[in-house]
Amino acid sequence: MTEKTFAFVVYPGFTVLDLVGPLQVLNHHAATDPSVRVVVVGETREALGTDTPLRVAPSHTFAEVPDPDWVLVPGGAAPTLRALSDTTLIAYLRHAAAGAALMTSVCTGSLLLGEAGLLEGRKATTHWLFRDLLRAFGAEPVAQRWVEDGPVITAAGVSAGIDLALHLVERIAGPAAARGVQFAIEYDPRPPHGPLDWAEAPHESLRSRREVALRDGLADAPELRDKLLAQW
Amino acid sequence: MTEKTFAFVVYPGFTVLDLVGPLQVLNHHAATDPSVRVVVVGETREALGTDTPLRVAPSHTFAEVPDPDWVLVPGGAAPTLRALSDTTLIAYLRHAAAGAALMTSVCTGSLLLGEAGLLEGRKATTHWLFRDLLRAFGAEPVAQRWVEDGPVITAAGVSAGIDLALHLVERIAGPAAARGVQFAIEYDPRPPHGPLDWAEAPHESLRSRREVALRDGLADAPELRDKLLAQW
Repeated sequence: MTEKTFAFVVYPGFTVLDLVGPLQVLNHHAATDPSVRVVVVGETREALGTDTPLRVAPSHTFAEVPDPDWVLVPGGAAPTLRALSDTTLIAYLRHAAAGAALMTSVCTGSLLLGEAGLLEGRKATTHWLFRDLLRAFGAEPVAQRWVEDGPVITAAGVSAGIDLALHLVERIAGPAAARGVQFAIEYDPRPPHGPLDWAEAPHESLRSRREVALRDGLADAPELRDKLLAQW
Repeated sequence: MTEKTFAFVVYPGFTVLDLVGPLQVLNHHAATDPSVRVVVVGETREALGTDTPLRVAPSHTFAEVPDPDWVLVPGGAAPTLRALSDTTLIAYLRHAAAGAALMTSVCTGSLLLGEAGLLEGRKATTHWLFRDLLRAFGAEPVAQRWVEDGPVITAAGVSAGIDLALHLVERIAGPAAARGVQFAIEYDPRPPHGPLDWAEAPHESLRSRREVALRDGLADAPELRDKLLAQW
Protein backbone atom coordinates (compact mmCIF):
# COMPACT_ATOMS: atom_id res chain seq x y z
CA MET A 1 0.00 0.00 0.00
CA THR A 2 1.38 3.40 -0.96
CA GLU A 3 1.22 5.83 1.92
CA LYS A 4 -0.26 9.21 1.08
CA THR A 5 0.42 12.38 3.05
CA PHE A 6 -2.03 15.01 4.26
CA ALA A 7 -0.15 18.21 5.07
CA PHE A 8 -1.70 20.81 7.40
CA VAL A 9 0.00 24.16 6.88
CA VAL A 10 0.79 26.62 9.69
CA TYR A 11 2.09 30.19 9.63
CA PRO A 12 2.29 32.90 12.33
CA GLY A 13 -0.98 34.16 13.78
CA PHE A 14 -3.43 31.84 12.02
CA THR A 15 -6.82 31.01 13.55
CA VAL A 16 -6.08 27.85 15.50
CA LEU A 17 -9.52 26.19 15.24
CA ASP A 18 -9.36 26.46 11.41
CA LEU A 19 -6.48 24.00 11.59
CA VAL A 20 -7.29 21.87 14.62
CA GLY A 21 -10.86 20.92 13.67
CA PRO A 22 -9.81 19.25 10.41
CA LEU A 23 -6.52 18.01 11.90
CA GLN A 24 -8.41 16.15 14.63
CA VAL A 25 -10.77 14.59 12.09
CA LEU A 26 -8.06 13.43 9.68
CA ASN A 27 -5.83 12.28 12.53
CA HIS A 28 -8.62 10.11 13.93
CA HIS A 29 -9.04 8.59 10.50
CA ALA A 30 -5.30 8.06 10.01
CA ALA A 31 -5.16 6.17 13.33
CA THR A 32 -7.12 3.37 11.66
CA ASP A 33 -5.86 3.74 8.07
CA PRO A 34 -2.15 3.04 7.56
CA SER A 35 -2.37 4.42 4.02
CA VAL A 36 -2.81 7.96 5.36
CA ARG A 37 -0.04 9.95 7.04
CA VAL A 38 -0.93 13.27 8.71
CA VAL A 39 1.73 15.95 9.17
CA VAL A 40 1.75 19.60 10.20
CA VAL A 41 4.14 21.68 8.11
CA GLY A 42 5.67 25.11 8.61
CA GLU A 43 8.66 27.06 7.36
CA THR A 44 10.60 25.79 10.40
CA ARG A 45 9.74 23.47 13.29
CA GLU A 46 9.88 26.34 15.75
CA ALA A 47 6.78 27.11 17.80
CA LEU A 48 4.76 30.02 16.44
CA GLY A 49 1.89 32.11 17.74
CA THR A 50 -1.75 31.66 16.82
CA ASP A 51 -4.66 34.09 17.18
CA THR A 52 -5.01 32.80 20.78
CA PRO A 53 -2.53 32.52 23.68
CA LEU A 54 -1.73 28.97 22.51
CA ARG A 55 1.54 28.56 20.61
CA VAL A 56 1.96 25.62 18.24
CA ALA A 57 4.85 23.79 16.61
CA PRO A 58 4.65 21.85 13.33
CA SER A 59 5.94 18.30 12.99
CA HIS A 60 7.80 18.95 9.72
CA THR A 61 9.23 21.77 7.63
CA PHE A 62 7.98 22.67 4.17
CA ALA A 63 11.28 21.34 2.82
CA GLU A 64 10.70 17.96 4.46
CA VAL A 65 7.28 17.51 2.82
CA PRO A 66 7.60 19.15 -0.59
CA ASP A 67 5.06 16.96 -2.39
CA PRO A 68 2.04 16.17 -0.18
CA ASP A 69 -1.01 14.43 -1.64
CA TRP A 70 -3.52 16.63 0.15
CA VAL A 71 -3.03 20.09 1.65
CA LEU A 72 -5.13 22.18 4.04
CA VAL A 73 -4.34 25.80 4.80
CA PRO A 74 -6.10 27.64 7.66
CA GLY A 75 -7.15 31.27 7.67
CA GLY A 76 -7.25 34.11 10.13
CA ALA A 77 -7.62 37.87 10.31
CA ALA A 78 -4.72 40.37 9.92
CA PRO A 79 -1.99 37.68 10.14
CA THR A 80 -3.49 35.82 7.17
CA LEU A 81 -3.62 39.00 5.11
CA ARG A 82 0.00 39.57 6.12
CA ALA A 83 0.82 36.01 5.01
CA LEU A 84 -0.33 36.92 1.48
CA SER A 85 3.12 38.55 1.21
CA ASP A 86 4.95 35.54 2.73
CA THR A 87 6.77 34.38 -0.40
CA THR A 88 8.01 31.14 1.21
CA LEU A 89 4.47 30.13 2.21
CA ILE A 90 2.91 31.07 -1.12
CA ALA A 91 5.71 29.29 -3.04
CA TYR A 92 5.10 26.17 -0.94
CA LEU A 93 1.38 26.20 -1.76
CA ARG A 94 2.09 26.76 -5.45
CA HIS A 95 4.65 23.95 -5.59
CA ALA A 96 2.44 21.55 -3.61
CA ALA A 97 -0.53 22.27 -5.87
CA ALA A 98 1.41 21.04 -8.90
CA GLY A 99 1.46 17.50 -7.50
CA ALA A 100 -1.34 17.32 -4.94
CA ALA A 101 -4.66 15.62 -5.59
CA LEU A 102 -6.50 18.22 -3.52
CA MET A 103 -5.72 21.68 -2.19
CA THR A 104 -8.11 22.75 0.56
CA SER A 105 -8.63 25.73 2.83
CA VAL A 106 -10.67 26.86 5.80
CA CYS A 107 -11.87 30.43 6.32
CA THR A 108 -9.60 33.08 4.78
CA GLY A 109 -7.07 30.38 3.98
CA SER A 110 -8.72 30.53 0.56
CA LEU A 111 -7.16 33.95 0.03
CA LEU A 112 -3.74 32.28 0.34
CA LEU A 113 -4.76 29.72 -2.27
CA GLY A 114 -5.87 32.67 -4.40
CA GLU A 115 -2.52 34.41 -4.04
CA ALA A 116 -0.88 31.13 -5.09
CA GLY A 117 -2.91 31.38 -8.32
CA LEU A 118 -5.20 28.45 -7.59
CA LEU A 119 -8.61 30.16 -7.66
CA GLU A 120 -8.57 31.80 -11.10
CA GLY A 121 -11.93 31.08 -12.72
CA ARG A 122 -13.00 28.81 -9.86
CA LYS A 123 -15.92 28.91 -7.45
CA ALA A 124 -14.68 29.41 -3.91
CA THR A 125 -15.73 30.46 -0.43
CA THR A 126 -14.21 31.85 2.77
CA HIS A 127 -15.36 33.42 6.05
CA TRP A 128 -18.65 35.20 5.28
CA LEU A 129 -17.22 38.56 6.31
CA PHE A 130 -14.44 38.37 3.70
CA ARG A 131 -16.26 36.59 0.89
CA ASP A 132 -16.24 39.40 -1.65
CA LEU A 133 -12.43 39.62 -1.46
CA LEU A 134 -12.20 36.37 -3.41
CA ARG A 135 -12.97 38.27 -6.61
CA ALA A 136 -9.56 39.93 -6.37
CA PHE A 137 -8.05 36.51 -7.15
CA GLY A 138 -10.34 35.78 -10.09
CA ALA A 139 -12.64 33.51 -8.08
CA GLU A 140 -16.42 33.45 -8.08
CA PRO A 141 -17.50 33.73 -4.40
CA VAL A 142 -20.28 31.39 -3.31
CA ALA A 143 -22.07 31.12 0.05
CA GLN A 144 -21.75 27.44 0.92
CA ARG A 145 -20.31 25.45 3.82
CA TRP A 146 -17.65 24.26 1.38
CA VAL A 147 -17.20 24.52 -2.37
CA GLU A 148 -15.45 22.05 -4.63
CA ASP A 149 -14.13 23.13 -8.02
CA GLY A 150 -11.68 20.79 -9.66
CA PRO A 151 -8.77 19.99 -7.33
CA VAL A 152 -9.58 22.86 -4.96
CA ILE A 153 -12.04 22.75 -2.04
CA THR A 154 -12.54 25.88 0.02
CA ALA A 155 -14.59 25.98 3.24
CA ALA A 156 -16.42 28.78 5.03
CA GLY A 157 -15.31 30.35 8.33
CA VAL A 158 -13.47 28.62 11.19
CA SER A 159 -15.80 25.82 12.36
CA ALA A 160 -16.65 24.87 8.74
CA GLY A 161 -13.35 23.02 8.64
CA ILE A 162 -14.83 20.18 10.69
CA ASP A 163 -17.59 19.62 8.12
CA LEU A 164 -15.07 19.88 5.27
CA ALA A 165 -12.78 17.34 6.96
CA LEU A 166 -15.55 14.77 7.38
CA HIS A 167 -16.26 15.19 3.68
CA LEU A 168 -12.55 14.63 2.95
CA VAL A 169 -12.50 11.42 5.01
CA GLU A 170 -15.48 10.24 2.98
CA ARG A 171 -13.62 11.00 -0.28
CA ILE A 172 -10.51 9.22 0.96
CA ALA A 173 -12.08 6.18 2.62
CA GLY A 174 -15.85 6.17 2.11
CA PRO A 175 -18.92 7.12 4.14
CA ALA A 176 -18.54 4.44 6.83
CA ALA A 177 -15.09 5.83 7.71
CA ALA A 178 -16.48 9.37 7.91
CA ARG A 179 -19.31 8.26 10.18
CA GLY A 180 -16.83 6.41 12.39
CA VAL A 181 -14.79 9.58 12.90
CA GLN A 182 -17.97 11.55 13.54
CA PHE A 183 -18.76 9.19 16.44
CA ALA A 184 -15.15 9.31 17.66
CA ILE A 185 -15.26 13.10 17.97
CA GLU A 186 -18.91 12.96 19.10
CA TYR A 187 -19.83 15.50 16.45
CA ASP A 188 -23.51 15.92 17.17
CA PRO A 189 -23.62 19.72 17.26
CA ARG A 190 -25.98 21.51 19.62
CA PRO A 191 -25.34 25.24 19.25
CA PRO A 192 -27.06 26.70 22.34
CA HIS A 193 -28.96 29.20 20.18
CA GLY A 194 -29.49 26.87 17.23
CA PRO A 195 -28.14 27.39 13.72
CA LEU A 196 -27.13 30.84 12.55
CA ASP A 197 -29.92 33.15 11.47
CA TRP A 198 -28.25 35.06 8.65
CA ALA A 199 -30.91 37.76 8.80
CA GLU A 200 -29.34 38.64 12.17
CA ALA A 201 -25.71 38.65 10.98
CA PRO A 202 -23.83 41.46 12.80
CA HIS A 203 -22.39 43.05 9.67
CA GLU A 204 -22.04 46.45 11.31
CA SER A 205 -20.29 45.38 14.49
CA LEU A 206 -17.91 43.08 12.64
CA ARG A 207 -17.13 45.52 9.84
CA SER A 208 -14.61 47.31 12.03
CA ARG A 209 -12.80 44.01 12.62
CA ARG A 210 -12.59 43.51 8.88
CA GLU A 211 -11.23 47.01 8.37
CA VAL A 212 -8.66 46.57 11.14
CA ALA A 213 -7.60 43.26 9.60
CA LEU A 214 -7.02 44.86 6.21
CA ARG A 215 -5.29 47.92 7.62
CA ASP A 216 -2.99 45.97 9.96
CA GLY A 217 -2.44 42.96 7.77
CA LEU A 218 -1.63 44.90 4.61
CA ALA A 219 0.19 47.94 6.00
CA ASP A 220 3.33 46.88 4.13
CA ALA A 221 1.53 45.77 0.97
CA PRO A 222 -0.33 48.85 -0.32
CA GLU A 223 -0.86 47.47 -3.83
CA LEU A 224 -2.46 44.30 -2.50
CA ARG A 225 -4.52 46.35 -0.06
CA ASP A 226 -5.86 48.50 -2.89
CA LYS A 227 -6.59 45.41 -4.99
CA LEU A 228 -8.60 43.88 -2.15
CA LEU A 229 -10.32 47.09 -1.11
CA ALA A 230 -11.51 47.51 -4.69
CA GLN A 231 -13.83 44.54 -4.05
CA TRP A 232 -15.75 46.37 -1.31
CA MET B 1 -13.42 46.70 36.13
CA THR B 2 -11.90 43.62 37.74
CA GLU B 3 -10.30 41.36 35.18
CA LYS B 4 -11.21 37.70 35.47
CA THR B 5 -9.10 34.86 34.13
CA PHE B 6 -10.18 31.84 32.13
CA ALA B 7 -7.46 29.17 32.34
CA PHE B 8 -7.29 26.43 29.71
CA VAL B 9 -5.25 23.51 31.05
CA VAL B 10 -2.84 21.42 28.95
CA TYR B 11 -0.92 18.23 29.72
CA PRO B 12 0.98 15.77 27.48
CA GLY B 13 -1.01 13.89 24.85
CA PHE B 14 -4.43 15.50 25.33
CA THR B 15 -6.97 15.64 22.49
CA VAL B 16 -6.22 18.96 20.87
CA LEU B 17 -9.72 19.82 19.60
CA ASP B 18 -11.11 19.40 23.16
CA LEU B 19 -9.05 22.45 24.06
CA VAL B 20 -8.98 24.47 20.87
CA GLY B 21 -12.73 24.56 20.20
CA PRO B 22 -13.53 26.27 23.52
CA LEU B 23 -10.30 28.29 23.46
CA GLN B 24 -11.24 29.81 20.12
CA VAL B 25 -14.72 30.67 21.36
CA LEU B 26 -13.59 32.29 24.61
CA ASN B 27 -10.69 34.04 22.91
CA HIS B 28 -13.06 35.61 20.37
CA HIS B 29 -15.20 36.81 23.24
CA ALA B 30 -12.22 38.14 25.21
CA ALA B 31 -11.15 40.18 22.16
CA THR B 32 -14.18 42.39 22.73
CA ASP B 33 -14.47 42.12 26.54
CA PRO B 34 -11.57 43.61 28.50
CA SER B 35 -12.92 42.05 31.71
CA VAL B 36 -11.98 38.58 30.48
CA ARG B 37 -8.39 37.32 30.17
CA VAL B 38 -7.74 34.00 28.46
CA VAL B 39 -4.60 32.00 29.27
CA VAL B 40 -3.34 28.50 28.52
CA VAL B 41 -1.63 26.91 31.52
CA GLY B 42 0.68 23.94 31.87
CA GLU B 43 3.24 22.62 34.33
CA THR B 44 5.92 24.44 32.31
CA ARG B 45 5.85 26.66 29.24
CA GLU B 46 7.65 24.01 27.18
CA ALA B 47 5.91 22.67 24.09
CA LEU B 48 4.22 19.32 24.64
CA GLY B 49 2.69 16.72 22.36
CA THR B 50 -1.01 16.29 21.65
CA ASP B 51 -2.86 13.29 20.24
CA THR B 52 -1.98 14.66 16.76
CA PRO B 53 1.37 15.62 15.15
CA LEU B 54 0.79 19.19 16.37
CA ARG B 55 2.79 20.23 19.42
CA VAL B 56 1.52 23.07 21.61
CA ALA B 57 2.97 25.42 24.20
CA PRO B 58 1.01 27.10 27.00
CA SER B 59 1.22 30.83 27.67
CA HIS B 60 1.64 30.45 31.44
CA THR B 61 2.66 27.93 34.07
CA PHE B 62 0.32 26.60 36.75
CA ALA B 63 2.37 28.56 39.29
CA GLU B 64 1.80 31.80 37.38
CA VAL B 65 -2.00 31.40 37.42
CA PRO B 66 -2.77 29.70 40.74
CA ASP B 67 -6.24 31.17 41.19
CA PRO B 68 -8.16 31.38 37.91
CA ASP B 69 -11.84 32.32 37.89
CA TRP B 70 -12.82 29.71 35.33
CA VAL B 71 -11.01 26.53 34.33
CA LEU B 72 -11.40 24.15 31.39
CA VAL B 73 -9.57 20.84 31.20
CA PRO B 74 -9.55 18.80 27.97
CA GLY B 75 -9.65 15.02 27.71
CA GLY B 76 -8.08 12.36 25.56
CA ALA B 77 -7.49 8.61 25.45
CA ALA B 78 -4.55 6.82 27.11
CA PRO B 79 -2.63 10.05 27.92
CA THR B 80 -5.60 11.38 29.90
CA LEU B 81 -5.87 8.16 31.88
CA ARG B 82 -2.12 8.48 32.49
CA ALA B 83 -2.66 12.05 33.66
CA LEU B 84 -4.93 10.75 36.44
CA SER B 85 -1.63 9.92 38.21
CA ASP B 86 -0.07 13.33 37.43
CA THR B 87 -0.03 14.70 40.96
CA THR B 88 1.02 18.20 39.85
CA LEU B 89 -1.90 18.46 37.42
CA ILE B 90 -4.46 17.02 39.86
CA ALA B 91 -3.20 19.27 42.67
CA TYR B 92 -3.55 22.29 40.36
CA LEU B 93 -7.16 21.39 39.56
CA ARG B 94 -7.95 20.83 43.24
CA HIS B 95 -6.38 24.11 44.28
CA ALA B 96 -8.03 26.05 41.45
CA ALA B 97 -11.44 24.59 42.31
CA ALA B 98 -11.25 26.07 45.81
CA GLY B 99 -11.42 29.59 44.38
CA ALA B 100 -12.87 29.27 40.88
CA ALA B 101 -16.44 30.15 40.02
CA LEU B 102 -16.64 27.32 37.50
CA MET B 103 -14.62 24.19 36.78
CA THR B 104 -15.34 22.75 33.34
CA SER B 105 -14.19 19.84 31.22
CA VAL B 106 -14.51 18.44 27.72
CA CYS B 107 -14.57 14.72 26.93
CA THR B 108 -12.60 12.57 29.40
CA GLY B 109 -11.29 15.73 31.05
CA SER B 110 -14.14 15.05 33.48
CA LEU B 111 -12.23 12.02 34.78
CA LEU B 112 -9.45 14.43 35.82
CA LEU B 113 -12.01 16.57 37.65
CA GLY B 114 -13.22 13.34 39.27
CA GLU B 115 -9.71 12.42 40.42
CA ALA B 116 -9.44 15.92 41.90
CA GLY B 117 -12.51 15.06 44.00
CA LEU B 118 -14.89 17.44 42.23
CA LEU B 119 -17.55 15.02 40.98
CA GLU B 120 -18.56 13.26 44.20
CA GLY B 121 -22.37 13.13 44.23
CA ARG B 122 -22.64 15.24 41.08
CA LYS B 123 -24.18 14.61 37.69
CA ALA B 124 -21.52 14.57 35.01
CA THR B 125 -20.75 13.49 31.46
CA THR B 126 -17.79 12.64 29.26
CA HIS B 127 -17.08 11.01 25.88
CA TRP B 128 -19.92 8.52 25.30
CA LEU B 129 -17.48 5.60 25.14
CA PHE B 130 -16.16 6.28 28.65
CA ARG B 131 -19.32 7.49 30.35
CA ASP B 132 -19.72 4.62 32.83
CA LEU B 133 -16.24 5.26 34.23
CA LEU B 134 -17.56 8.39 35.93
CA ARG B 135 -19.16 6.21 38.62
CA ALA B 136 -15.67 5.36 39.91
CA PHE B 137 -15.43 8.99 41.05
CA GLY B 138 -18.82 9.04 42.75
CA ALA B 139 -20.53 10.84 39.85
CA GLU B 140 -23.87 10.06 38.28
CA PRO B 141 -23.23 9.71 34.52
CA VAL B 142 -25.74 11.43 32.25
CA ALA B 143 -25.99 11.46 28.44
CA GLN B 144 -26.18 15.15 27.60
CA ARG B 145 -24.15 17.55 25.46
CA TRP B 146 -23.10 19.19 28.72
CA VAL B 147 -24.19 18.85 32.33
CA GLU B 148 -24.13 21.54 34.99
CA ASP B 149 -24.13 20.61 38.68
CA GLY B 150 -23.16 23.37 41.05
CA PRO B 151 -19.81 24.90 40.09
CA VAL B 152 -18.90 22.04 37.75
CA ILE B 153 -19.89 21.74 34.08
CA THR B 154 -18.77 18.69 32.15
CA ALA B 155 -19.24 18.29 28.39
CA ALA B 156 -19.47 15.25 26.14
CA GLY B 157 -16.77 14.13 23.68
CA VAL B 158 -14.34 16.36 21.75
CA SER B 159 -16.55 18.62 19.59
CA ALA B 160 -19.00 19.18 22.47
CA GLY B 161 -16.53 21.71 23.83
CA ILE B 162 -17.64 24.25 21.23
CA ASP B 163 -21.26 24.06 22.38
CA LEU B 164 -20.17 24.22 26.03
CA ALA B 165 -18.02 27.28 25.32
CA LEU B 166 -20.85 29.20 23.66
CA HIS B 167 -22.92 28.46 26.76
CA LEU B 168 -20.08 29.78 28.92
CA VAL B 169 -19.90 33.01 26.91
CA GLU B 170 -23.63 33.40 27.47
CA ARG B 171 -23.17 32.91 31.23
CA ILE B 172 -20.30 35.40 31.32
CA ALA B 173 -21.69 38.09 29.01
CA GLY B 174 -25.21 37.24 27.90
CA PRO B 175 -26.88 35.73 24.83
CA ALA B 176 -26.01 38.56 22.41
CA ALA B 177 -22.31 38.02 23.12
CA ALA B 178 -22.66 34.28 22.54
CA ARG B 179 -24.46 34.85 19.25
CA GLY B 180 -21.76 37.30 18.16
CA VAL B 181 -19.05 34.70 18.71
CA GLN B 182 -21.15 32.10 16.91
CA PHE B 183 -21.16 34.38 13.83
CA ALA B 184 -17.46 35.11 14.23
CA ILE B 185 -16.56 31.41 14.08
CA GLU B 186 -19.35 30.80 11.53
CA TYR B 187 -20.69 27.98 13.69
CA ASP B 188 -23.54 26.78 11.51
CA PRO B 189 -22.76 23.07 11.58
CA ARG B 190 -23.46 20.90 8.54
CA PRO B 191 -22.22 17.40 9.32
CA PRO B 192 -22.12 15.74 5.88
CA HIS B 193 -24.15 12.79 7.17
CA GLY B 194 -26.37 14.78 9.51
CA PRO B 195 -26.52 14.42 13.30
CA LEU B 196 -25.34 11.22 14.97
CA ASP B 197 -27.74 8.31 14.89
CA TRP B 198 -27.00 6.68 18.24
CA ALA B 199 -28.69 3.45 17.13
CA GLU B 200 -25.71 3.13 14.77
CA ALA B 201 -22.99 3.86 17.35
CA PRO B 202 -19.95 1.63 16.63
CA HIS B 203 -19.64 0.25 20.16
CA GLU B 204 -17.90 -2.91 19.02
CA SER B 205 -15.27 -1.33 16.79
CA LEU B 206 -14.44 1.34 19.35
CA ARG B 207 -14.35 -1.02 22.33
CA SER B 208 -10.82 -2.05 21.47
CA ARG B 209 -9.74 1.59 21.51
CA ARG B 210 -11.21 1.94 24.97
CA GLU B 211 -9.42 -1.18 26.18
CA VAL B 212 -6.11 -0.05 24.70
CA ALA B 213 -6.56 3.34 26.36
CA LEU B 214 -7.11 1.75 29.77
CA ARG B 215 -4.30 -0.76 29.36
CA ASP B 216 -1.74 1.74 28.08
CA GLY B 217 -2.85 4.70 30.15
CA LEU B 218 -3.01 2.85 33.46
CA ALA B 219 -0.14 0.36 33.10
CA ASP B 220 1.62 2.00 36.06
CA ALA B 221 -1.55 2.53 38.12
CA PRO B 222 -3.01 -0.96 38.68
CA GLU B 223 -5.25 0.09 41.57
CA LEU B 224 -6.81 2.88 39.56
CA ARG B 225 -7.16 0.57 36.56
CA ASP B 226 -9.03 -1.99 38.68
CA LYS B 227 -11.24 0.74 40.15
CA LEU B 228 -12.19 1.93 36.66
CA LEU B 229 -12.56 -1.53 35.14
CA ALA B 230 -14.98 -2.39 37.94
CA GLN B 231 -17.42 0.03 36.28
CA TRP B 232 -17.59 -2.05 33.07
